[in-house]
Amino acid sequence: MNLDTLKANVLNANLATVRHGLVKATFGNASGIDRESGLIAIKPSGVPYEDMTADHMVVCDLDGRSQTNLYRPSSDLETHLALYRAFDGVGAIIHTHSTFATIMAQARHPIISLGTTHADYFHGTIPVTRNLTPEEIKSRYVAATGDVIVEAFEGRDPLEVPAALVAGHGPFVWGDTLESAVLNAMILEEVAKMAWHTLTISPSASPISQDLQDRHYLRKHGENATYGQN
Amino acid sequence: MNLDTLKANVLNANLATVRHGLVKATFGNASGIDRESGLIAIKPSGVPYEDMTADHMVVCDLDGRSQTNLYRPSSDLETHLALYRAFDGVGAIIHTHSTFATIMAQARHPIISLGTTHADYFHGTIPVTRNLTPEEIKSRYVAATGDVIVEAFEGRDPLEVPAALVAGHGPFVWGDTLESAVLNAMILEEVAKMAWHTLTISPSASPISQDLQDRHYLRKHGENATYGQN
Amino acid sequence: MNLDTLKANVLNANLATVRHGLVKATFGNASGIDRESGLIAIKPSGVPYEDMTADHMVVCDLDGRSQTNLYRPSSDLETHLALYRAFDGVGAIIHTHSTFATIMAQARHPIISLGTTHADYFHGTIPVTRNLTPEEIKSRYVAATGDVIVEAFEGRDPLEVPAALVAGHGPFVWGDTLESAVLNAMILEEVAKMAWHTLTISPSASPISQDLQDRHYLRKHGENATYGQN
Amino acid sequence: MNLDTLKANVLNANLATVRHGLVKATFGNASGIDRESGLIAIKPSGVPYEDMTADHMVVCDLDGRSQTNLYRPSSDLETHLALYRAFDGVGAIIHTHSTFATIMAQARHPIISLGTTHADYFHGTIPVTRNLTPEEIKSRYVAATGDVIVEAFEGRDPLEVPAALVAGHGPFVWGDTLESAVLNAMILEEVAKMAWHTLTISPSASPISQDLQDRHYLRKHGENATYGQN
Repeated sequence: MNLDTLKANVLNANLATVRHGLVKATFGNASGIDRESGLIAIKPSGVPYEDMTADHMVVCDLDGRSQTNLYRPSSDLETHLALYRAFDGVGAIIHTHSTFATIMAQARHPIISLGTTHADYFHGTIPVTRNLTPEEIKSRYVAATGDVIVEAFEGRDPLEVPAALVAGHGPFVWGDTLESAVLNAMILEEVAKMAWHTLTISPSASPISQDLQDRHYLRKHGENATYGQN
Repeated sequence: MNLDTLKANVLNANLATVRHGLVKATFGNASGIDRESGLIAIKPSGVPYEDMTADHMVVCDLDGRSQTNLYRPSSDLETHLALYRAFDGVGAIIHTHSTFATIMAQARHPIISLGTTHADYFHGTIPVTRNLTPEEIKSRYVAATGDVIVEAFEGRDPLEVPAALVAGHGPFVWGDTLESAVLNAMILEEVAKMAWHTLTISPSASPISQDLQDRHYLRKHGENATYGQN
Repeated sequence: MNLDTLKANVLNANLATVRHGLVKATFGNASGIDRESGLIAIKPSGVPYEDMTADHMVVCDLDGRSQTNLYRPSSDLETHLALYRAFDGVGAIIHTHSTFATIMAQARHPIISLGTTHADYFHGTIPVTRNLTPEEIKSRYVAATGDVIVEAFEGRDPLEVPAALVAGHGPFVWGDTLESAVLNAMILEEVAKMAWHTLTISPSASPISQDLQDRHYLRKHGENATYGQN
Repeated sequence: MNLDTLKANVLNANLATVRHGLVKATFGNASGIDRESGLIAIKPSGVPYEDMTADHMVVCDLDGRSQTNLYRPSSDLETHLALYRAFDGVGAIIHTHSTFATIMAQARHPIISLGTTHADYFHGTIPVTRNLTPEEIKSRYVAATGDVIVEAFEGRDPLEVPAALVAGHGPFVWGDTLESAVLNAMILEEVAKMAWHTLTISPSASPISQDLQDRHYLRKHGENATYGQN
C-alpha cells in the first residue's frame, strides 16, 4: 500500500471515531499497518481533531523506529506496536474511551455473548485484561498494556474477537482493515451498552447457545460466509 | 399495487428505520407485500443504506421464488415469508436491532403493558419467542425464526400486538402498511425503553388495568376509533 | 388577548414540545386560555406536527362549546378544561409522554425534591394521581383524568408545583403563560431523569431541606424574586 | 489581560457549556479572572444564551465591587468570588447542572477514580460538600456555598482535582484558563456518567491503583508531562 494512502486511511479512521461519538476531547487513537513494508501510521499526540490532516499522521516501523515526521506519535504507540507484533492478521487498531465499553472496563466485566448483535461481530466473550503490576506501570506502562491484551488472547484467534477491555481504562479494537476496525469499535460500543442494560435488569442472563453464536458469526465471516452480495 | 410503488415504499421504510435511529450499520430490514399479486419486496443483503435505491429492492413470491433481481435478498427473507404466510392482514414487516427492544429480547423479558403509550399501539403483552432448538438453528434457522414468532401468537390476533421479541436476537415488527410498521417499530423502541426503566426502579410494577388498556387501544384502532380527523 | 395571537402562541408551544424532544409521533398536546374572553385554543387531534398551522388550532369555551373550527380538538380536551376550571391562575397546559416523566408515572413514583434544579421550578413533591376506577374509565375517562389531577392538588397551590404525573399514563404540566408551561415541561423531564438516576444509585436519597427548597424556589418566584434583570 | 479579551473569553466559555450540552435553560454560569488587575468577568443573571454578547458580561473585583455594568451579575457570583479568593491558581470557574454530575451531587456520592479517563484530568476523588446549615442557607447562602467547597479542599491542591459536587445542587468546576475549565466541565460530566454506570452494575468497584492514577495524571500535568506536541 502507498504510504500516502495509509496515512489518508488512518486520518479517516480517526475522524470516523469522532463522528460516530466514540471519542470525546482527544481521547483515542487509530493506526494502520502496511504489512508489506512493515510501516505503521498513527495519530499524533494531543492534536485537535478539527485541525488534523493526513500529513499529521506519524509513521514508524514495528519497533517504533520513527521515519521523518512533523509530530510526536500518540502516547499509546507502544501498545499498538505490541499488538501488531503479536497479532499477525491485524491491519488496524483503534483505541477509544467510548462510554459503555469503558464502563465495562472500569467494572472489570467481560462482555459475554448475550445476543446475535454480539455474535455477528465477536465470536465469544470479549475479555478484560488483568491489572498491571506496580512495576509494569512504573517502568514500561504503555508497552505492558499491549502485553496484557496479548496475554488475554492466549490460545484464541484475535481476529475472531477483535476487541479487549483494558481493566480500569477502556477498549482496544482491531480488524484486518481500517474500515473493519472502525465498524468493530462502533459495534463494540453498542454491544457493551446492550450488555450493561441486559445484565442490570436480568443479572443472571446467560450467553446465547454456542450453536447460535456460530450460526451468526460464520454467516458473516470465514470461507462459508453468506451475508452480502459477494 | 404497482410493483414500482411497492419497491419505492419498501426503500422508504428501510431508510426511515435508519433516520429514526432504529438501525445501525446494516442491521435491519423492511419488506412489504402486495396481497393481490402475492409479490413481496425486501431490502437486499448487506448493501449500505446510503447507496440504496428502489431498484436494489429484491422481489419474490410468498414461497420465496425470486423474480428478476439484481441483488440477493436480505438474509432474513425466510422469516418475513413465514410471517406473511401465517398472518393474513400483515402488509409490511420490519426487523431491527433497536437498542432497548433488543435488550429486552436479550433479557428474555416480555414487555407488559405498563402505560398508555404501550396501550395506544399494542393491545397486551409483547411476547418473547422460545429458544430455537439446536436442530432448528443448524438446519433451517431463518425460517424457524419465523415459526417461533407465529407460535408465540397462537390464539392471538397478530395485528393487535404487532411485534415480537426473538429471544437473544431482537424485534420483528409489522403493520397493515409500511407506514404503520415503521411507526410501530418506533413506538416499540420507546415502549421498551420506558419498560426497562420502569421495572428497574420499580421491579414489581404491574400492567395498567384491562379497562385502561382497552380504552386506549380502541380509541385508535377498530371500527369505533375516535382519534384523528376522520 | 387577540384570538389570532392565542392560536399562534399555542401552535408555537406545540412545536416547541417536539423541538425539545418531549413529544414523539403525535403524542402530546398544548393549549392556552385567554382568561378575559374565556376562550381556549388547543391542538387538533392526530394532525402531523410538520403540517400544523395556527389555523388548525381548535377554539372552544371553558365548557367545551366549540367555536367555528376546521378540525376536531385533541382527544385530551376535557382534561385541559377540567384543569382550567379548577386552577384559576393557569394560562396554559401541556401534556406529553416525555420519557422519564412517563417512566415515573408508570412506576407510580412521586418526584421528591432531590436537588435545587427541582426546587428552582417546583416547590415540593410532584404528585402521582390515584388510579381511575373502572367506572371512570368507561364513562368519562378524559374528564376524570382532569379530576384526579385536581384531587392531587387539594390544599396545594397548583402554580407552586406546576405538574402532575397521571398514573400509568404521563405528565400534565402548566404555567401562567405558554412560555412558562413549555419551560416547566422541559425542566420536569430533566428533573425526572435526575430523580430516576439518583434513586437508582441511592434508593434512600431524601429531599433537600425545606430551607433550601424555599431559598431556591423563592429566588425565582413571588414578589421577593431576585433572579434575572428585572 | 485586556478586559475586552476577558469578557470575550467568558462569553465563549458560557456558550461552550451550552454547545456541549452541559447547560439547559439558563442553569449555569462561567466566569474568568485577570489576576494582574484582580478583575473578574461573569455571566449576567437570567439572560437567554442566544441573546448574549460580550458586553453583557458583568465585571467586578474580588470583593464583588461592581465596575460600570449594564446588567446584574449571575446570582452565583458570591460563590465564584469565594473560590477565587481561596484558590490562588484558579483562572476560571464554571457552574453547571450537567446531568450526571448533578445526579451524583443529589446522591451525595463522591466520584472515586474508577478509571484512567478520570485520572487523566482529576488526581483523586471528586468530593461532595457538606450540607449547609439552616443559618447559612438563610443568611449568606451563595457565599457559604463557596465556603463549603473550600472546606472540602482543605489540605488538597484544588488544581489537582478541579471540581466539587455541591450536595443536593450540582458541580462547580475550575481551571487555570477558561479553556481548561470548559474541558474539565465536559470531562467531569463524562466521568460522572461512567462512574454512575460502573457502580450500578458493580457496586463494590474500587478505585484504580495510586500508581495508575499518578501515571495518567502526571503524563498530562506538571513539569514532567509528556502528552501533546510541546
